[in-house]
Amino acid sequence: MITIRPAEEADFDAIWRIFHEVVQQGDTYTYDPETTRDQAHSIWMSDEHTTYVACVDDEIVGTYILKPNQRGLGSHVANAGYMVGIEGRGKGIGRAMCEHSLQEARRMGFIAMQFNMVVSTNEAAIALWKKLGFSIVGTLPHAFRHKELGLVDVYVMHRFV
Amino acid sequence: MITIRPAEEADFDAIWRIFHEVVQQGDTYTYDPETTRDQAHSIWMSDEHTTYVACVDDEIVGTYILKPNQRGLGSHVANAGYMVGIEGRGKGIGRAMCEHSLQEARRMGFIAMQFNMVVSTNEAAIALWKKLGFSIVGTLPHAFRHKELGLVDVYVMHRFV
Repeated sequence: MITIRPAEEADFDAIWRIFHEVVQQGDTYTYDPETTRDQAHSIWMSDEHTTYVACVDDEIVGTYILKPNQRGLGSHVANAGYMVGIEGRGKGIGRAMCEHSLQEARRMGFIAMQFNMVVSTNEAAIALWKKLGFSIVGTLPHAFRHKELGLVDVYVMHRFV
Repeated sequence: MITIRPAEEADFDAIWRIFHEVVQQGDTYTYDPETTRDQAHSIWMSDEHTTYVACVDDEIVGTYILKPNQRGLGSHVANAGYMVGIEGRGKGIGRAMCEHSLQEARRMGFIAMQFNMVVSTNEAAIALWKKLGFSIVGTLPHAFRHKELGLVDVYVMHRFV
């Protein structure tokens, strides 16, 4: 069973393992593949957003962050980023985190959720976001330097919550 | 004649007047209309981007910032934000700054320029960006809380440089 809860400082060892695994691939996130542990801590455990972890049998298998996509007059739209460790894939953890984040966004008063940088070659994620009600509202040509494929397009995805 | 140069700390009095005038309108930028001078300084004079001023007869009439739109694997796309004081409008200052920023972006090695939050009711700006080669690559429904009009759509605009 997957349980999802706010992250605590003590979770960062596990979060870092997942962050490093994901970012090192250079195929889904813009974070530098060589991002250090300290940099990852500043990015992912920032006070400016809420960090969550997804656990199976008390083991952390995924993590996500939730925040306003813009400040001020754009702060009613949420943004989230999800990471699942390589071993945890294919078990519904991404889906569970996304559903959780939509609930949380609703609870916090956001009216919509927007993903700014969905790499167009990340087909599994795009298929999942579509199943969960997101649609592609924009295409950014050549906006991502994929580690293997070079410059690839990026989608902006959106749904009301 | 319009001249454009990097901003210096001593320019901030003039920049603040423009920033405050523009942001207070609540119709083009997400920055809180009540943004203070100190907050504006942190935002607009940040070390994380380059700040420019546009002058007519040594008077500062406009200002813009230029930066990577994303870090890491998205850092090859530039982002810019332009502000013209109310008195300076209709004199080609926005156009001059945009053309200057495209040159600067090219010089710095960016391959494209992207605007993330073009408020759909800002027709003058949209017409200008289109004339300068930008196109709408995305539409974010209800993503901006316009001070007068309430929730309005936002465009993502893009061009290669």
